[in-house]
Amino acid sequence: MSEEIGKITPRSEDFPKWYQDVVREGDLAEQAKVVKGCMVIKPHGYAIWEKIQQDLDRRFKATGHKNAYFPLLIPKSFITKEAEHVEGFAPELAVVTHAGGKQLPEGEEYVIRPTSETIIGHFFSKWIGSYRDLPLLINQWANVMRWEQHTRMFLRTTEFLWQEGHTAHATHEEALEEVVRMLHVYGDFAEGVMAMPVIRGEKTANERFAGALSTYCIEAMMQDGKALQAGTSHDLGQNFGKAFDVKFQNEQKQTDYVWQTSWGVSTRLIGGLIMTHSDDTGLVLPPKLAPIQTVIVPIFRKEKEKDEVMTAANKLADEIRVKNIEVTVDDRDGKRPGEKFYDWERKGVPLRIELGPRDIASGEVLTRLRVAEEKSKMNLAALANDLPGVLDQFQTTLFERAKGLREENTVTLNTWDEFLEVFKEGESKFAWAHWDGTSETEAAIKEETKVTIRCIPMPGHGPDLEPGTCIKTGRPSARRVLFSKSY
Amino acid sequence: MSEEIGKITPRSEDFPKWYQDVVREGDLAEQAKVVKGCMVIKPHGYAIWEKIQQDLDRRFKATGHKNAYFPLLIPKSFITKEAEHVEGFAPELAVVTHAGGKQLPEGEEYVIRPTSETIIGHFFSKWIGSYRDLPLLINQWANVMRWEQHTRMFLRTTEFLWQEGHTAHATHEEALEEVVRMLHVYGDFAEGVMAMPVIRGEKTANERFAGALSTYCIEAMMQDGKALQAGTSHDLGQNFGKAFDVKFQNEQKQTDYVWQTSWGVSTRLIGGLIMTHSDDTGLVLPPKLAPIQTVIVPIFRKEKEKDEVMTAANKLADEIRVKNIEVTVDDRDGKRPGEKFYDWERKGVPLRIELGPRDIASGEVLTRLRVAEEKSKMNLAALANDLPGVLDQFQTTLFERAKGLREENTVTLNTWDEFLEVFKEGESKFAWAHWDGTSETEAAIKEETKVTIRCIPMPGHGPDLEPGTCIKTGRPSARRVLFSKSY
Repeated sequence: MSEEIGKITPRSEDFPKWYQDVVREGDLAEQAKVVKGCMVIKPHGYAIWEKIQQDLDRRFKATGHKNAYFPLLIPKSFITKEAEHVEGFAPELAVVTHAGGKQLPEGEEYVIRPTSETIIGHFFSKWIGSYRDLPLLINQWANVMRWEQHTRMFLRTTEFLWQEGHTAHATHEEALEEVVRMLHVYGDFAEGVMAMPVIRGEKTANERFAGALSTYCIEAMMQDGKALQAGTSHDLGQNFGKAFDVKFQNEQKQTDYVWQTSWGVSTRLIGGLIMTHSDDTGLVLPPKLAPIQTVIVPIFRKEKEKDEVMTAANKLADEIRVKNIEVTVDDRDGKRPGEKFYDWERKGVPLRIELGPRDIASGEVLTRLRVAEEKSKMNLAALANDLPGVLDQFQTTLFERAKGLREENTVTLNTWDEFLEVFKEGESKFAWAHWDGTSETEAAIKEETKVTIRCIPMPGHGPDLEPGTCIKTGRPSARRVLFSKSY
Repeated sequence: MSEEIGKITPRSEDFPKWYQDVVREGDLAEQAKVVKGCMVIKPHGYAIWEKIQQDLDRRFKATGHKNAYFPLLIPKSFITKEAEHVEGFAPELAVVTHAGGKQLPEGEEYVIRPTSETIIGHFFSKWIGSYRDLPLLINQWANVMRWEQHTRMFLRTTEFLWQEGHTAHATHEEALEEVVRMLHVYGDFAEGVMAMPVIRGEKTANERFAGALSTYCIEAMMQDGKALQAGTSHDLGQNFGKAFDVKFQNEQKQTDYVWQTSWGVSTRLIGGLIMTHSDDTGLVLPPKLAPIQTVIVPIFRKEKEKDEVMTAANKLADEIRVKNIEVTVDDRDGKRPGEKFYDWERKGVPLRIELGPRDIASGEVLTRLRVAEEKSKMNLAALANDLPGVLDQFQTTLFERAKGLREENTVTLNTWDEFLEVFKEGESKFAWAHWDGTSETEAAIKEETKVTIRCIPMPGHGPDLEPGTCIKTGRPSARRVLFSKSY
């Protein structure tokens, strides 16, 4: 895809190109090119990631987790200890074979962590001896690397930033509670902070994390009708406990393997944020994640107006900051107000305030919410006080808009012909349909249509339980599951 | 060195072993062992790092810097573009030769970043075109890797966490201002937050960053009299600008290379924190970096006292939290108060509050500051109000104590015999002495005594300017410089 600086391709014309344009024009990131499949996260993009981190980190700590840091490099031999894990990750590993000017001896190579279950399992085995050491609730903020063939900024990059929670428990029941608890932390964050509605459910066996007994996920609909897996939470059972000998003595003085979980979200969330809210003008950010929540553009024609306007603009900005709202006064010389409006729209700033001599005189300013058709008038004296409510309302508007779009593009399907029609070349929706529960049927559907089962919804997160017959094979099914094409 | 769980070797007996014991007993970190020279930063250690990050990050942002993120992997060919840089870092590189199941073509290998001047230089060349793009002020929080032979937890590990600032300027003067500004940010942080006094100065040519015109540093004295280089700030001149073709058009429409700086501090700071304040009982933390600033240990003999004591303890904790002080009520069953005291002392908690039925009745509680000889009585009703002042005072006490120790162990030397006496086997101080300004003399002194020039002090940060004769060669010298053995 060729890049045309300054231009944003309409979504209707070419959705993937639109996405790339929004990322570039929003100054969020760029492809590294010199490092295969990697990106540089530029300041505006990184500032969004910092806001995501701060909010999630608070939620992790509030649920009893502590942050720690484990090595980037994992002995290659560790990866092979859990049979399914190695099968899942081996093709994507980056391997360090030389260090300190020497070749590492055969068998002593390292891989750059693709995820840290193995090395953390190793340390858990040293730290855990008794039920008194449990639960052990750890989280790590880190970079990881998976050598993927097809990459796209934020959505899938060979290196990405993420958090990975790793916990160990005395019983399977407790571990499952943790898996579900953290899935809800992700779901609540996605909906409450990202304003991105999600379906919460369980993955089928085909889509499970390599080495897990079960994987729970949140699935969001992008504006092209495709699904984005935005976060996962895994029940690892005793698989890694057995592979890394993580044993403990229970209250009955019997030795058992611990029950482990892991869960993660990554910079991929930023891709989801973009494809949920942005439009043909560029980036749209929910106030809770916008690095700049409000911009004041001073407007003056003559130099003698400048002082008055700048004084009023800075005074207003100070009043706004007291409300804990991040505000910028765009005092750049040599740029016309229209250019400034355009800049900030592309960066997704939720609210713009236009402030000129007439506005100061009348006590009313023109403002524009990022997705509003029209400008609004706001009382200048009351503006700082009114702003938190305006931004909260905008946050709600974005969520409702995204939810409405998802509802419009969600269908209930009962025949294979309908299914083929909905999922014809280049199109996708969320479809609730019956499935016979076999991996073979799921694979056949994927092979024919590129559609996968995104999840089996958790109770209350999908249609009511209702038996039926598989949309592909006609065999009996206990419930509808969520089908979609996906990222 | 063999580890004896639970025991802290006295400093006077074996300082390096004491250090290792304090790290282990404080539950800060452990050697990874399975990954050469790496460590696991455990929750208590990582919580200190988070506090360091938060404070520094605020200072970086207040001085106009923005965070971004660049790739972990750097094309191997990049490292060779700046001649001195490759010479400095080549021996320490970890190299990725295989990825995605294939061997990378010859010449297309990657190294894990040992520092990011090269890859950031590459992107600066794409982002900078005009003086209007300058200054460009970027910071990155990241992991880096240097394959060192001799490692020690926090002080020198093959992988470490750090921040690296990278800036580009239109003039050398502006770049130098930035170098000095950021050195003072580090110095103010070290003294004001870590309570660790530092000498601010410039490195000699021998000790400069590979590829820099000059390197500024902060040097702290550890309790064994050795120096720890705790932070550096580099004037890169146009060296990387030329190597990576980072050009801009200046206001006179002439093309020139940008002037760059870089500056960094790392998890090494935690090593400095430990060796500045801790004692033979274990970790000592300044309140501003203590993850837990106060602990309340409830004391009760009979079960019927428990309710009353726990209610009072939780009420007190709530009052303390309102003051933005991090407090824990140690309600662990099955541990005696004495064991709890011991635990929290080893973790460096600044203040312990002992709360029992008699204290509640009398309205006075026994408290103990981590380095106080005796317990103090504090008024229970006023405690939450008094606490911020008590902790501030403790912060000051630690700084003054460290400064006093440094003064006691700082000497002014005039003869080589004195020098040899001060720096005999196993001993070190800070010594101000004259030096003839040549790398040869510096190297000869290092060869004979293991002592290096830690820095040429900045004005006002060392003895007054006063000419003399070199302590080693007797040749003329314009000023005294700081000599010490170092980490």
